[in-house]
Amino acid sequence: MKHLTQHGFSLIAIAVILSALLFEGCSNEQERSSKPNVVIVFLDDLGYGDFSSYGHPTINTPVIDRLAREGQRWTSFYTAASVCTPSRGALMTGRLPVRNGLAGERSSHGVFFPYSTGGIPQSEITIAEILKEEGYKTAAIGKWHLGHLPKYLPTRHGFDSYFGIPFSNDMDAVAEWSLATVLTPPHPEYWDIPLMRDEETIERPVNQRTITQRYTEEAVKFISANRKNPFFLYLAHTMPHTPLFAGEKFIGTSKRGLYGDVVNEIDWSVGEIISTIEELGLDEKTLFVLTSDNGPWLSMLENGGSAGLLREGKGTTWEGGMRVPAIFWWPGVISSKVVSDIGSTLDILPTVAGFVGADLPSDHILDGYDLGPILLGRQPSPRKGMYFYRRQELYAVRKGPFKAHFVTSDAFANDAVREEHDPPLLFNLEHDPSERYNVAKQHPEVIEEIWAMVLEHRTKIKIVESEVAKYPKQL
Amino acid sequence: MKHLTQHGFSLIAIAVILSALLFEGCSNEQERSSKPNVVIVFLDDLGYGDFSSYGHPTINTPVIDRLAREGQRWTSFYTAASVCTPSRGALMTGRLPVRNGLAGERSSHGVFFPYSTGGIPQSEITIAEILKEEGYKTAAIGKWHLGHLPKYLPTRHGFDSYFGIPFSNDMDAVAEWSLATVLTPPHPEYWDIPLMRDEETIERPVNQRTITQRYTEEAVKFISANRKNPFFLYLAHTMPHTPLFAGEKFIGTSKRGLYGDVVNEIDWSVGEIISTIEELGLDEKTLFVLTSDNGPWLSMLENGGSAGLLREGKGTTWEGGMRVPAIFWWPGVISSKVVSDIGSTLDILPTVAGFVGADLPSDHILDGYDLGPILLGRQPSPRKGMYFYRRQELYAVRKGPFKAHFVTSDAFANDAVREEHDPPLLFNLEHDPSERYNVAKQHPEVIEEIWAMVLEHRTKIKIVESEVAKYPKQL
Repeated sequence: MKHLTQHGFSLIAIAVILSALLFEGCSNEQERSSKPNVVIVFLDDLGYGDFSSYGHPTINTPVIDRLAREGQRWTSFYTAASVCTPSRGALMTGRLPVRNGLAGERSSHGVFFPYSTGGIPQSEITIAEILKEEGYKTAAIGKWHLGHLPKYLPTRHGFDSYFGIPFSNDMDAVAEWSLATVLTPPHPEYWDIPLMRDEETIERPVNQRTITQRYTEEAVKFISANRKNPFFLYLAHTMPHTPLFAGEKFIGTSKRGLYGDVVNEIDWSVGEIISTIEELGLDEKTLFVLTSDNGPWLSMLENGGSAGLLREGKGTTWEGGMRVPAIFWWPGVISSKVVSDIGSTLDILPTVAGFVGADLPSDHILDGYDLGPILLGRQPSPRKGMYFYRRQELYAVRKGPFKAHFVTSDAFANDAVREEHDPPLLFNLEHDPSERYNVAKQHPEVIEEIWAMVLEHRTKIKIVESEVAKYPKQL
Repeated sequence: MKHLTQHGFSLIAIAVILSALLFEGCSNEQERSSKPNVVIVFLDDLGYGDFSSYGHPTINTPVIDRLAREGQRWTSFYTAASVCTPSRGALMTGRLPVRNGLAGERSSHGVFFPYSTGGIPQSEITIAEILKEEGYKTAAIGKWHLGHLPKYLPTRHGFDSYFGIPFSNDMDAVAEWSLATVLTPPHPEYWDIPLMRDEETIERPVNQRTITQRYTEEAVKFISANRKNPFFLYLAHTMPHTPLFAGEKFIGTSKRGLYGDVVNEIDWSVGEIISTIEELGLDEKTLFVLTSDNGPWLSMLENGGSAGLLREGKGTTWEGGMRVPAIFWWPGVISSKVVSDIGSTLDILPTVAGFVGADLPSDHILDGYDLGPILLGRQPSPRKGMYFYRRQELYAVRKGPFKAHFVTSDAFANDAVREEHDPPLLFNLEHDPSERYNVAKQHPEVIEEIWAMVLEHRTKIKIVESEVAKYPKQL
């Protein structure tokens, strides 16, 4: 069947090439550059277990599952933080949040709030800046959350344009924030969220019921307008972060309830983007990546997602907080495979730079690896471990199959329920992805090796001032 | 892609038909009956989350995943008990264990042991008996566990032949049973398990290291020998029940450790069976079903399986104890789909009878439904609920998306940790498959409906004497 699928696929490819040739035949414009387009779809609080292809019993995501099947579906792929701001910063810069200022302080916020005064430092170099330098058209659509004062907006950090909301969709609550207002079918007017175009607010409060659809239309427009240029689209959906809003057409479409309706709309959105890419004959010229910023927000009850078989969710350094679905799709280039090697959102910047042939920033220490060789099916992943930070503190370290937890805490826990472990808890994630069976006693040598990693890592890390801690303290 | 896959598929079909025609052309034998062959592969303690297609990050099951993709992959499919004997009896008879004598008593064993004197009653009618009546050749290969005295063996209950072990592979322990002897690489001689052919013991203790391979060879031989007859193969693998044994070729092949090696060998075994079916041109004449007898044996630590996102495992009436993977494959007949409707091993007997055109036993109350219409893609599942028994006691009931737990207990718990719930715990399994969020307060009307179901069910159930409770009590 594998061969037949490939055979089937080559029929698509032929159709696409034929239509591309026809299209080119009608056009007098220059041949497009050989530099690949880059599309990153970044979801908000979607858990490891929230797609059909990652095992959800009642969520049905045919488009995403198709990309997972045709491309590479990664099963040990990590974000660099378990909450929004530091996770997004790490994706954008290829650097750990403790290095780029986007980690919160221990007794302070973990993410930017509407009253925050910090943001992504000017000195950081984003994927967009690297690609712009290479002649790419760049667009950010969706949630930013790396600072909302003008100097921190996407348009000041490498993006030609921006259309989206600058922080989380549950912020600037008009009424007092409560589980009831979030979970009983919410109304967009409960939150005074601005929708921005470039640096202007164009709608406030944004109608969140149409937000996924409008992001999608913007994305399709951007791709179509740039079919002759190499382009970089960063589409950071506001959903499925609580409060959940689905477009009218999607309400009631999923057995999984409102959360499933919202995921259905995201699947539709991905379908619109992929079919635009295919119709323009760009599918063999476009690297498409889909992943999530952190694990599911479990305290939102049925309105939060599922980490599948993984332990805990958003806000923790358990696997459910930081291991997310990740799909890489690029027909004819990326080999079709389920990959259980380790990868991270930190690796996206070096991987993109590798495909584009761009130089990496020479005066910045990067924490990512170029995943190109494994995406091409040539080599195993260069990433052999992962550092799990909560704010500025290293909580856990993965080395090969093993993960040691030096500190654990519940989601959004204050320091009271923070627990230190000496010896650390040790799990073999390849045998025990649910982190049930502590094997510290059986593997003292692994704990020693991981301690050595920690000590070496510490010599290479200079924790910079937290931008996230910048807000008027009388609040 | 769906269309292309179907297109791809029709190429296989053409190839198969051509080779079938060629094959028939070389033969003078009569045209085979239009009755479909039936192959049931039943796994032992394999959990809901233990295939790649059901979301396991490091288990790689390409053959099973291919069947899941080409056929129907069910995501809400239940066994009728959370342990071996009653679960197998329910599959074989289409009847709840409280009806067919295979449920244990509350303070007694849950399954047959080597000293048990009970077994499947002569009055029960098995799938094999129904199919034999229709002219099928019938073979049972693997674990039986419905009684090991001669009158209870497969050969007395509709099977022409038997090759396998009569009870669990961790019974008749030579040394004292301990977690250490089971989990540190075990030796086949620790358990004095007989391997039987028909009604004779041919090897004792059986070499469990070669057992999956030998079952597979027997299965392939049976299929090949019966290519001209309609046949029924019931292949009940001994694995992945602890103690785990993999064939030499499979040791070290999985990142998941020994458990993964064992699942790899099962995937290979399924591949041997499917390619035999395909090479003989029987794929469009064969209903293939693959499922498991109950959830994972979590107390076996890393040597037990994973229930994926489901709560708890074997021995409990939580979802992890009784929801299992289920794949139906029959090219050209069964429509390719992920199905989240409810189904059960109880439904296999009426479904098979429906496809074969056999009469159902007229003097037996059946607890199963004919899933034919949904397998053909024509209708939703006729099953709208499920009764979750532990031994002879009703613990929980599912009605549509809701499941009410009246009693819960931990795996293998004695009565001390048995907990009664009034009002029952209530979960919406479609929204919350992990049974985290009790919604009893929000849905009193659902609890009333489920109580009505229970009362009606009780009028239809006559609990018969437990065969499982029959053993010398001085033990």
